[in-house]
Amino acid sequence: MSKYLVFGHKNPDTDAIGAALAFAYYLEKMGYDAEAVALGQANEETQFALKHFNLEAPRVIEKASHETDRVALVDHCERTQSVDDIDEVQVDFVVDHHRISNFETANPLFYRAEPIGCTSSVLYKMFKEQDIDIPQSIAGMMLSAIISDTLLFKSPTSTKQDREIAQELAALANVDLQTYGLELLKAGADLSDRSDLEIVDGDAKTFDMNGHKVRIGQVNTIGFDELLSRKDGLVEAMESKLSTNDYDLFLLVMTDILDNDSLGLVVGSQPTVVERAFGSALEDGMIHLPGVVSRKKQVVPPLTEAYNA
Amino acid sequence: MSKYLVFGHKNPDTDAIGAALAFAYYLEKMGYDAEAVALGQANEETQFALKHFNLEAPRVIEKASHETDRVALVDHCERTQSVDDIDEVQVDFVVDHHRISNFETANPLFYRAEPIGCTSSVLYKMFKEQDIDIPQSIAGMMLSAIISDTLLFKSPTSTKQDREIAQELAALANVDLQTYGLELLKAGADLSDRSDLEIVDGDAKTFDMNGHKVRIGQVNTIGFDELLSRKDGLVEAMESKLSTNDYDLFLLVMTDILDNDSLGLVVGSQPTVVERAFGSALEDGMIHLPGVVSRKKQVVPPLTEAYNA
Repeated sequence: MSKYLVFGHKNPDTDAIGAALAFAYYLEKMGYDAEAVALGQANEETQFALKHFNLEAPRVIEKASHETDRVALVDHCERTQSVDDIDEVQVDFVVDHHRISNFETANPLFYRAEPIGCTSSVLYKMFKEQDIDIPQSIAGMMLSAIISDTLLFKSPTSTKQDREIAQELAALANVDLQTYGLELLKAGADLSDRSDLEIVDGDAKTFDMNGHKVRIGQVNTIGFDELLSRKDGLVEAMESKLSTNDYDLFLLVMTDILDNDSLGLVVGSQPTVVERAFGSALEDGMIHLPGVVSRKKQVVPPLTEAYNA
Repeated sequence: MSKYLVFGHKNPDTDAIGAALAFAYYLEKMGYDAEAVALGQANEETQFALKHFNLEAPRVIEKASHETDRVALVDHCERTQSVDDIDEVQVDFVVDHHRISNFETANPLFYRAEPIGCTSSVLYKMFKEQDIDIPQSIAGMMLSAIISDTLLFKSPTSTKQDREIAQELAALANVDLQTYGLELLKAGADLSDRSDLEIVDGDAKTFDMNGHKVRIGQVNTIGFDELLSRKDGLVEAMESKLSTNDYDLFLLVMTDILDNDSLGLVVGSQPTVVERAFGSALEDGMIHLPGVVSRKKQVVPPLTEAYNA
């Protein structure tokens, strides 16, 4: 039998990479041959976590079918977010915390999803259920994923379970949850070394909204000054991606991780859809999104609704 | 919050009803308000099990959205096999052991599927993980579901896990696994009170195969004599369903549960597709299917392949 390649979504965040490392470890313990890989380079936040726990970043793949005929997905299931040749391999395992859409299999499979803050929280339960010990480095990456996905429990996607699991993982990883959590988020919010294109598109996902191709990026920051000083460059990068990929709209959500507040930067032919979605006015192509920190819960649903209205 | 309606697929078998009863009980123990219902009358086998464990059959519903806005699915996920107004309610939970197809949600959900013999085996693990005691009657229905789906472990869909779980459930249900198992399967194979239409369509499912609408029914029997003596009536019932529903093909798999062997009865405009699928010739509209007991593993895949060739 060929080896399982285990990977998260394109433009990987800390959960996509942390959960891949954790699930590959889990599968090995369950008797399978498995390797964690990634569909893109680790971002600054993930690199900080990997370095802190002395791990190498998983190797980056662009296709899977020349290496294996079977794969395991973490932190996503939608085809548009997965490896390019996903239709040429068999998906035998999925561990996730998103909706199910644009996904189907020919055969029965193992699928485990829960509506909680992080894939790594679901994985933690699976380790406990099978009584598999979690090594310090894997625990550290799973913890980092939870901190990242929940913005240290401030996101509305965060649940009591995520917080409790993070506390147990912090003990296994031998770090102080609050101290390490802030360090990790700050590392992810350090934009000095990132190009305009990396900022606008590094974490972006594409959504189909009533026939419109909508690209939504998100970038964490501490205060908005640095991003605002680079606004012209960011808009230029968004316009370039928009025209190359025929997006109808590109929305960059800039999220202040200390104030739990966001600014939206909008590019596209019908920017007023964003005004309708959030009920306030654009000024200079920007919209204030008070209290918004979660793309999944606070950005995608109102925008979908505005496109459907 | 409105109550969860919990149900299995249309034309319910013992797993569809047993797993609904078990999962509704589980959800109640987890603090939700839940009721098991069914998308059709319990068949003879299921009625035997319900009577043995002193349970009432779940009430039958045709629609869900006038009662609730959220549901839990067991033993299926495909829209064509679910309640008619499935698109008007939110699916928050799925527990299953089939492929994922023709299914999508707008929001994250709880999804638990494993490629093993029975939904009730997956549920048994969930009870154990949460340390929830299983009452005798629920254990009895879960056990009956496993016996039914695996044909007492003779089906190729059966796994070591199903067998081990069945042994533990038999202890909880206070029955002898082999003795009760044969009684249950025999009750399901008693055709004397069933009309021709009930026999051909009572357990049938519709599949899309390369644009063809294929209906596959299955009936358990002990020896083929009784069914063969009713052949003309069965064919008439199949032809009537075929023309009313525009099926391209109707295949009735008659399975001898003691000999682990099947006969296929075929109606439709291109019956030779069945010959290509199974590599042998039709005689009088019938085909011998030696060793075939599982629709999911031994009938659907070769027929799908024959339609795609």
